[in-house]
Amino acid sequence: MFLLKHSRLVSRTLSVQLIQPSYFRIQMSTVSTTNPKFQKIFKKVDELKPDFIQVLAEAVEIPAVSADESLRPMVIKKAHFLVDKLKQLGFEDIQLKELGVQPPPVNDPKLQLPPVVLSRYGNDPSKKTVLVYGHYDVQPASIEDGWDSEPFKLVVDEEKQLLKARGSTDDTGPLTGWLHVVRAHQEAGIELPVNLLTCFEGMEESGSLGLEKLIGQEADKYFKDVDAVCISDNYWLGTKKPVLTYGLRGCNYYQVTINGPGADLHSGIFGGVIAEPMVDLVQVLSSLVDSKGKILIKGIDEMVAPVTEKEMKLYEDIDFSLEELEEASGSKTALYEKKEDILMHRWRFPSLSVHGVEGAFSSQGAKTVIPAKVSGKFSIRTVPDMDSAKLTKLVIDHCNSVFEKLGSPNTIHAELIHDGNYWVSDPFNAQFTAAAKATKEVYGVDPDFTREGGSIPITLTFEEQLKTSVLLLPMGRGDDGAHSINEKLDISNFIGGIKTMVAYLHYYAESPEN
Amino acid sequence: MFLLKHSRLVSRTLSVQLIQPSYFRIQMSTVSTTNPKFQKIFKKVDELKPDFIQVLAEAVEIPAVSADESLRPMVIKKAHFLVDKLKQLGFEDIQLKELGVQPPPVNDPKLQLPPVVLSRYGNDPSKKTVLVYGHYDVQPASIEDGWDSEPFKLVVDEEKQLLKARGSTDDTGPLTGWLHVVRAHQEAGIELPVNLLTCFEGMEESGSLGLEKLIGQEADKYFKDVDAVCISDNYWLGTKKPVLTYGLRGCNYYQVTINGPGADLHSGIFGGVIAEPMVDLVQVLSSLVDSKGKILIKGIDEMVAPVTEKEMKLYEDIDFSLEELEEASGSKTALYEKKEDILMHRWRFPSLSVHGVEGAFSSQGAKTVIPAKVSGKFSIRTVPDMDSAKLTKLVIDHCNSVFEKLGSPNTIHAELIHDGNYWVSDPFNAQFTAAAKATKEVYGVDPDFTREGGSIPITLTFEEQLKTSVLLLPMGRGDDGAHSINEKLDISNFIGGIKTMVAYLHYYAESPEN
Repeated sequence: MFLLKHSRLVSRTLSVQLIQPSYFRIQMSTVSTTNPKFQKIFKKVDELKPDFIQVLAEAVEIPAVSADESLRPMVIKKAHFLVDKLKQLGFEDIQLKELGVQPPPVNDPKLQLPPVVLSRYGNDPSKKTVLVYGHYDVQPASIEDGWDSEPFKLVVDEEKQLLKARGSTDDTGPLTGWLHVVRAHQEAGIELPVNLLTCFEGMEESGSLGLEKLIGQEADKYFKDVDAVCISDNYWLGTKKPVLTYGLRGCNYYQVTINGPGADLHSGIFGGVIAEPMVDLVQVLSSLVDSKGKILIKGIDEMVAPVTEKEMKLYEDIDFSLEELEEASGSKTALYEKKEDILMHRWRFPSLSVHGVEGAFSSQGAKTVIPAKVSGKFSIRTVPDMDSAKLTKLVIDHCNSVFEKLGSPNTIHAELIHDGNYWVSDPFNAQFTAAAKATKEVYGVDPDFTREGGSIPITLTFEEQLKTSVLLLPMGRGDDGAHSINEKLDISNFIGGIKTMVAYLHYYAESPEN
Repeated sequence: MFLLKHSRLVSRTLSVQLIQPSYFRIQMSTVSTTNPKFQKIFKKVDELKPDFIQVLAEAVEIPAVSADESLRPMVIKKAHFLVDKLKQLGFEDIQLKELGVQPPPVNDPKLQLPPVVLSRYGNDPSKKTVLVYGHYDVQPASIEDGWDSEPFKLVVDEEKQLLKARGSTDDTGPLTGWLHVVRAHQEAGIELPVNLLTCFEGMEESGSLGLEKLIGQEADKYFKDVDAVCISDNYWLGTKKPVLTYGLRGCNYYQVTINGPGADLHSGIFGGVIAEPMVDLVQVLSSLVDSKGKILIKGIDEMVAPVTEKEMKLYEDIDFSLEELEEASGSKTALYEKKEDILMHRWRFPSLSVHGVEGAFSSQGAKTVIPAKVSGKFSIRTVPDMDSAKLTKLVIDHCNSVFEKLGSPNTIHAELIHDGNYWVSDPFNAQFTAAAKATKEVYGVDPDFTREGGSIPITLTFEEQLKTSVLLLPMGRGDDGAHSINEKLDISNFIGGIKTMVAYLHYYAESPEN
């Protein structure tokens, strides 16, 4: 945490200087299109690569960690950074939408949510209007977690041809990609074929608090002409083949708190005579899921939609293997060997992960403390046809029931911290067709149509509130390490992703349907 | 952690200024002796109270947290602070004994252990020589843990008549007490009745690494004339009656590490398809002890010495109650109701505490991470006749056996981080008799003879290596909150403790035996 804070003090100039020399040594990627329609603008994207990397370097240097209350000013600073960039590009009607105070649990009851950045480029009624969504907040990161370099300073790795920093792939790289799409059109002298709206939020990594309400409020106002929504906040399945994504798991995040003594106690003086909250907590946490990944909370399996024969066939064609999973995870610790089992457990079955414990001793070394109050954190990835409220009741009842059987004098409080529903779309609609053609244009192959294990809860909100289709158009690869150490984005994916965004807008603009 | 580090930057002047105005409003405690022998020096102790508090304020301001590698320079700074004070008082042959590099597990393989401060006051062969031990390192503390005030700044609470800061009672208050004993003699014009040696270490809260070896090396050198060792690093049993302590539990501290993927992973992408180290860890931790405090590792109970009839009787007389335990713990979460059960489970039965997890998510909020490598921390308080090596074998075998049954592809490594043996002494020897008379002199009551649940592993080392008796002479009370938030030392205990030290040295000097 210290390094996070310290990084605020590092001058922007310094890190830019560190990066600049390498710009000119990066080998330029090829234009990679045979279609004369895109040759000029793809060439421009290639030429502008050093500028695009420079913007990314400036953006990731702001430690916009939404989960860390003390870094909230940095999240807000990054919103203003984006506003400046949008202004420079000629975006209009730029609005910083305030979302009010963050609801509990928070340390600071007056903590303001970061604003949503709305803006518009073009207002031609004869054109389709595409709303692009991205998030400018990032996951926590500290060099002490094991990063090879300062996480909030962009490293351009020339040998591996990749860009390394927290936010490089999730989601600052893809988000700024949309700005580069506009710049490339301007510099190539080509008109943007659609009206482009932006919706950039700063709370995605912490449950998109406040965004759902805002989308509802703006559905008939700022967003009234939106024909399609495109979200670039996910990844290729593997490392070689581009994908388009038509389904997401949801995520219900829970916290189970055990309260015991009035303050942390010395285990020598109180060990053996006081009921320890941490002892109760590990009993509760150990009752949730087994080491094979089987969820032990009763009633969850029954909510999952059965697998059909037709669905089974879909998985057979997808380019993926156990080896790719092992490479991405950096280990041979997979729970399944068959491709189909892996993909189905990632995409269409629920999973339960135990993330950690707040309030217990968490540093290196040996502290002989009995923590007074500990909160276990776990989440369940949800799939059709799980009902969030029903699931939460099952989870809380389960925790309370396990705790009751312990006969502990401590107290328990199990709660849902946030939830986001799963989403499944039609992969053959106008948007997906346009994106598939764009992908083929840039990468020379048809994309795989995949689902995702991760959650972008707002996908469903856009679909329901704006009554439009939503496309998930990934920029990065499966091994980018989003939420992990040494998060990266391959330079070829950064540039290829921007070109794909360009081509998608043109193909979608030409599409006879919405 | 940020505040810990920040506190380095706070000027000493500021905090001293904050404290000074209250010195002169503190009601002076009474001299509380009818013995003309001590009237003059006890009066001097009372008069010097503002100075004594000032020294404590300066000392606790140095965040000498031995468990935090990044704060090691602060631990060393505190050693030099003590050297300065010893010099001012005229101590001689002051030596900073270096203990070499800290053994693994450490982040920095070159991390130096803090030095041991040896010094001598008086070298008269006709006098007895008393070695006093204390530790200048402290437990970790951060205002974010819930402290009412900055933990590394002394707060003088006039209303409650107490001194609040990390280290106030454990062990900076008692340690500096010995310096005040010398100062009071000097200012009262009374000769110190013994030769006084100091042995102040900086790693007690992290296993006293290196000290055992040093004591062995110095047994026939610096410590060759030592007749008795006095350690002031424990507490009264309750809050009202002074005690002398003749027994301690030992402490074996364990770490069980589960290693899985090559880096932290996103639970959306990998949840359900990768074996999670945190899931395995909570299974292992939940197998160690139940919520009633019963240790579940087989073979431990059989090592504990059986309770005798005579021993049972001892517990009946001691002034203690369930209510005192509840008050000290700030809760009604005791595992036993009867006084005897509480005391025996604190003093003469083993206990197992789960302290926390290193490597997992530990902050507020919701991070959807699958931690790659997690280390559970737990310790067992040991009692006669448990054998440390045999215990460690039982613990490690147990962890490995539980893990093996999980069928996880992850790997486990269970290890002993440090151990310190239990200790039991003769409460009727010359030292204890002198200390009992001193206590009666100051507090007007006979002390209870008690054991302690906590561990001061070095007690046994002194006894064995120097072939002397060791006395545990507590200064603070049972509710001081050592290792907890808002650690405090009552002003009456600070001053009463210094007077008790004074009287103990005089009575012991007069004692016919060693």
